[in-house]
Amino acid sequence: MALIVLKFGGTSVGDTCRIERAAGKIAQEVKRGNQVAVIVSAMSGVTNQLVEYCNDISSTHDAREYDAVVSSGEQVTAGLMAIALQKLDIDARSWLGWQVPILCSDVHGKARIEDIDSSKMLEHLQGGQVAVLAGFQGVTANNRIATLGRGGSDTTAVALAAALGAERCDIYTDVDGVYTTDPRIVKSAQKIDKISYEEMLELASLGTKVLQTRSVEMAYKRDIPLQVLSSFEDTIGSDLPGTLVTREEDIMEKHVVNGVAYEKNTAKVTLLDVPDIPGVAAEIFGPLTGGNVNVDMIVQNVAPDGKMTDMTFTVPEEELDMAIECVKKNTKLKDVEILSDKNVVKISVVGIGMVSHTGVAQTMFKALADKGINIQVIATSEIKISVIIEKEYLELAVRALHTAYGLDAV
Amino acid sequence: MALIVLKFGGTSVGDTCRIERAAGKIAQEVKRGNQVAVIVSAMSGVTNQLVEYCNDISSTHDAREYDAVVSSGEQVTAGLMAIALQKLDIDARSWLGWQVPILCSDVHGKARIEDIDSSKMLEHLQGGQVAVLAGFQGVTANNRIATLGRGGSDTTAVALAAALGAERCDIYTDVDGVYTTDPRIVKSAQKIDKISYEEMLELASLGTKVLQTRSVEMAYKRDIPLQVLSSFEDTIGSDLPGTLVTREEDIMEKHVVNGVAYEKNTAKVTLLDVPDIPGVAAEIFGPLTGGNVNVDMIVQNVAPDGKMTDMTFTVPEEELDMAIECVKKNTKLKDVEILSDKNVVKISVVGIGMVSHTGVAQTMFKALADKGINIQVIATSEIKISVIIEKEYLELAVRALHTAYGLDAV
Repeated sequence: MALIVLKFGGTSVGDTCRIERAAGKIAQEVKRGNQVAVIVSAMSGVTNQLVEYCNDISSTHDAREYDAVVSSGEQVTAGLMAIALQKLDIDARSWLGWQVPILCSDVHGKARIEDIDSSKMLEHLQGGQVAVLAGFQGVTANNRIATLGRGGSDTTAVALAAALGAERCDIYTDVDGVYTTDPRIVKSAQKIDKISYEEMLELASLGTKVLQTRSVEMAYKRDIPLQVLSSFEDTIGSDLPGTLVTREEDIMEKHVVNGVAYEKNTAKVTLLDVPDIPGVAAEIFGPLTGGNVNVDMIVQNVAPDGKMTDMTFTVPEEELDMAIECVKKNTKLKDVEILSDKNVVKISVVGIGMVSHTGVAQTMFKALADKGINIQVIATSEIKISVIIEKEYLELAVRALHTAYGLDAV
Repeated sequence: MALIVLKFGGTSVGDTCRIERAAGKIAQEVKRGNQVAVIVSAMSGVTNQLVEYCNDISSTHDAREYDAVVSSGEQVTAGLMAIALQKLDIDARSWLGWQVPILCSDVHGKARIEDIDSSKMLEHLQGGQVAVLAGFQGVTANNRIATLGRGGSDTTAVALAAALGAERCDIYTDVDGVYTTDPRIVKSAQKIDKISYEEMLELASLGTKVLQTRSVEMAYKRDIPLQVLSSFEDTIGSDLPGTLVTREEDIMEKHVVNGVAYEKNTAKVTLLDVPDIPGVAAEIFGPLTGGNVNVDMIVQNVAPDGKMTDMTFTVPEEELDMAIECVKKNTKLKDVEILSDKNVVKISVVGIGMVSHTGVAQTMFKALADKGINIQVIATSEIKISVIIEKEYLELAVRALHTAYGLDAV
C-alpha cells in the first residue's frame, strides 16, 4: 500500500462528466490499495471568467480580493469531486486551503507555500478516506485566502506530496506526457518516457506549459517522482503511461538534447553606453526586482574601450513598460540610451547530456544559420542553450533544431 | 454616526454593473458618516448553476460537499463588491463565514447560526473600513462550511446586525417594499410603508418571498428595525423609501388586514378513520418530523361517534411522497386510509388589527363564497386566517380578498 497524490488540471475536470471520469481513475488507485490525496484545478474556463469579473470592475483591483474571488473555482471542483467519488462508494471529502491549513506568504496572487500542516488530513487518509484538496490556494498568517499564481495547482500537488511523504505525484492533464517539442509545430515530436528534474525544470521555465516551474523545483528538492499522464486515456497499470520526471541517475539512456522549447512572451531591452564599472549590474537590476519585473536572460559584452559597454536583458512582454520605467527613473543611468523590441522569441535546447558532449552549441548555431536565421542574443547554462531570434522565424527554428538534434520520430 | 447593515440580494448583484451600482448605494451611506457592514448574495443564477452541478453528479449528494460548492457563489460577490468599493475610494474588505467566524450548527444545507464573534470585524469597522460579508454561510465546530438554506443571506444580515448592535438592517432587493399582495396578480396592490414584525413573520411564512422567515423572526427577537428597499431606485434620504418592519407600538395606523398571501407549493394529506384517542397526533407527526417533513396546517375535527376521526395536514409538494411513506411505515396506523391532493393552494389574510376586530373571518368566507370558491380547510391564529382551496381559484380568490378587505389602491 502506498500513499500517492493525484492532480487533475482544468480540462480534466472541465464539466461534471469529466469530473466523474476523473473520479473513475481515482477509484482505480483506491482499489489497488493506495491511500489517495487528490488535487483539483478549477473547471476549465472558470478561472478566466472570475478574473474577467475582477478586471471588469477595476484593472487595478486589490490582490487580496482577487484571491478571494478566483480561489472559489477550485473550491467548487473539490466539492463536486468528493460527491463524484462518494457516488462510486468511495469515502471522500473536500479540503480547502484554510482547512488543511496550507500556510502561505501574503504576496497575494503569487503566494508561496510556507508550511503544510498535514496531520489532520493524514488521519483522514489513514482512515481510508480520499482527500480532495482545492489546488492553487492557501491561507496567510492574516487568515486571508491567497493564490499561488497560474498553474499553482501543480505546486499544491507537489507540496502536499512532500508534506505527506507520498511515494509519487501524478499530474493528470490533457496531454499524455512531455514532448521533445510542441507537437503543434513539429508533427514528428516524440513523447519523452523519462526526464530528469533538471531538464524538466529548464523546459518548464523555458515555456513548456505542461508543468509549473515551481512544482518541478519543489519535486526536485524533495525528491518526489512526478508523472505526467493523460486523463483521457486509460493508462493505469501500463509500464510507461506518460512521462516520469525523476533523478538523473534513474535515467539510463541520456540524450544530448532532450527537448526544444520556445517562449513567445518575451521582450528584449538593450541599454547602450552603460559605464563598465563594478556595481553597475546591481544598479540596473536591483530596482527592476523591486518593481516586480521578472528579468530572464542577461547578456553583457566586454567593453571594447574598457569604459562603456552594452547590456541586454529580456522580460515578459507585459512587464516591458514597467522595466523601461524603472531604468528611466534611475538617476545614475540618466545618460544611458534604451532600445526595446517585442518582436522576438526565445528558443532553447535542453539536455543533460550536454555536460559531457562538445559541439552542442555549434550544432544549434549551424542549424539556424543554414535557415538564414539571425541570432540576436545567446545565453547558455550547463544543460541548456537559449537564443533570441526574430518572432517570425519561430516555427522554422524549432523544426530545424528538432531535426538537427535527431529528435524526429522515425 | 450609526452602524448599519445593508444586504444586497442576487438580482441586486446580478452582474458586475449591478455590483458597481450597489457599491454606489453603500458609498452614499458611508459618506453620510455611517459605519457600514454589507451582506451579499450570489450573483443571480449562480447558486442555481452550482446546485445543478451537484445534482448532475448525484441527486443524493453529501450535504457537506454541497455546502462547499454552493457557498462559493457568495464568496465571489463579496470579493467583487470589495473591489467595487475600493474603486470608489472606500476602504473595504471581504469576509467569509469562517473568517469572522460565523459559527453554525452542522445541519448542512439548513444550518442555524449559533454564534457570531464580531470582535475582529468590529475593529475593522471602527477603523472606517466597510465589511463585505458573504451571506448564506457559516462554519461548523468541525471547521466545515455550512449554508443556511435558500434566502439565508437575509438571516446572515439580521444576525450580523444583532451581533454588531446595528441601528438598522436594510435589505436591498428587486422590489421596493412589501405589498398588500402580489402585484403580478392584483394590479392595485399597494406598498406597505410600515408593518409589524408579527405580520411580516406571518406573510413571510405564508409565501411572501421578500424576506426569509427566519430573518424576520430574528429581527423580531432582537428588536432590529428591518427595511426592505429597491436597489434599482434612488431612495436614500427619502422619508419612507421602502417598507419598514418594526415593533407594533411604532405603527400608528393599524389595518385590520394588512396583506393577502398565497403559497402554491403545498399539498394536502387526509387520514381517514384515525382512532380518536390521546397520543394519536404525536403518533402521526413524530415520525414526520423525524423524516424531515415540514408539516404546515393541521386540522382535526371532533369525532362524530367519539371513536374515529379524520385528520388533515399540509406539506410542501416535494415532501408529499416522503410524508405518505412515513405514515404507511407506521404500524400503529395500518388501518388508516390515506388521501392526498397536490391540486391545492393556501390563501391567507394577515393583520394585527384582527385581534381587536370581529367578523374578519366572516368577511373572508363570504368573499370566497360569493365567487363560488369552496373552502377545504381552515386554520386561524391571532393575526391570520388561512384556507386551502383548489389551485385554479388562486388569482380569483386573492383579488376578491384584496378588495373585500379594502386594500385596493384608490
